[in-house]
Amino acid sequence: MELSERQEKIVEIVKNSSPITGEQIAAKLDLTRATLRPDLTILTMAGVLEARPRVGYFYKESQKKYPHMEKLRRLRVGDFKSLSASIRENISIYDAIVTMFTENVGSLAVVGEGQALKGMISRKDLLKAALGQTDLQQVPVSVIMTRMPNIIMTTDDEPVLDAARKLTTHQIDSLPVVEAFIDEKGEERYEVVGRFTKTNVAKIFVQIGSLED
Amino acid sequence: MELSERQEKIVEIVKNSSPITGEQIAAKLDLTRATLRPDLTILTMAGVLEARPRVGYFYKESQKKYPHMEKLRRLRVGDFKSLSASIRENISIYDAIVTMFTENVGSLAVVGEGQALKGMISRKDLLKAALGQTDLQQVPVSVIMTRMPNIIMTTDDEPVLDAARKLTTHQIDSLPVVEAFIDEKGEERYEVVGRFTKTNVAKIFVQIGSLED
Repeated sequence: MELSERQEKIVEIVKNSSPITGEQIAAKLDLTRATLRPDLTILTMAGVLEARPRVGYFYKESQKKYPHMEKLRRLRVGDFKSLSASIRENISIYDAIVTMFTENVGSLAVVGEGQALKGMISRKDLLKAALGQTDLQQVPVSVIMTRMPNIIMTTDDEPVLDAARKLTTHQIDSLPVVEAFIDEKGEERYEVVGRFTKTNVAKIFVQIGSLED
Repeated sequence: MELSERQEKIVEIVKNSSPITGEQIAAKLDLTRATLRPDLTILTMAGVLEARPRVGYFYKESQKKYPHMEKLRRLRVGDFKSLSASIRENISIYDAIVTMFTENVGSLAVVGEGQALKGMISRKDLLKAALGQTDLQQVPVSVIMTRMPNIIMTTDDEPVLDAARKLTTHQIDSLPVVEAFIDEKGEERYEVVGRFTKTNVAKIFVQIGSLED
């Protein structure tokens, strides 16, 4: 199991002095009990710790494995992605905002020939532009977009779990789903074939959570 | 298990004529194989269908149960929510956008006395305002916010699964986490105590997906 730094510390503390209450663990880490609650919930759910009411937390030597999680690992971006919405780099910021509303999306891929990815633009980028002195009707999106190669991407084959990790780690709402190709100049380009968003992740989460009924 | 209408139809088809290939199921539903893939993946993962390579799909009479999913059900919003970011209704749209950037959030709760929820404002609402002829520095957020009682809310005690379902069903990015109270006039109000977003869902998904290692 992949533990965060704080979770590692908690496990270390419980290993050394169990049983120990949540309050005691919090005191040792100089944190509040409330701050620790998500970590303790996850560690207990993972079977790393055991919580006994009115006693405290224990470290579990033999941790149950979760073979069904392997199935979760097998879910691929290509099966859950959304259709891509794309624009050209010379359109105005104003038109990009309009496109976002007509397409009902929170991000747009900026593409060239053959749907080759040149940049990405998000609601956040557009809001920032709206805040400035920028003339939204005159300035093209190319001025404010995030450009290649600074774009975090995914592919049809990537496990949704890894794509979800990219979204949370990089604090972005959407990844372009791409396929690599070599252009006429022999350079590697990426054709946009979809988008994978936090909405897709939330939908998968809801579906998985409904499996038990 | 809670199946979508399309998933019910797929199960019915497979029950009546198994083994049957994905292409054949798609043809019967007048859909493409690609459209069906997420449903087939979920149904197979749920143990409702079995997929045998080069043969096709079978209906599984005895479906394995997923007791671990019960743990997922026990995760509560209160343990995973983010801190709320709130503003007063008389501040300008411009200042609301600035607050969104300084607080690094995608939505703001508009509150009155005692953090009582009056409205919500999203990046989408602000972008729409930026598009119009609105003077962002002059117009207060109260003009464009979504008002009570038209706000979808959650509470600390709600399972994260149900909150995630609200986010996807209503196509919103964020829910205010509230606690009900009775004001001095005897009316029910809701104090904002946090926010629960698609980002929180994605983080939980990543944590759960990492449990197996």
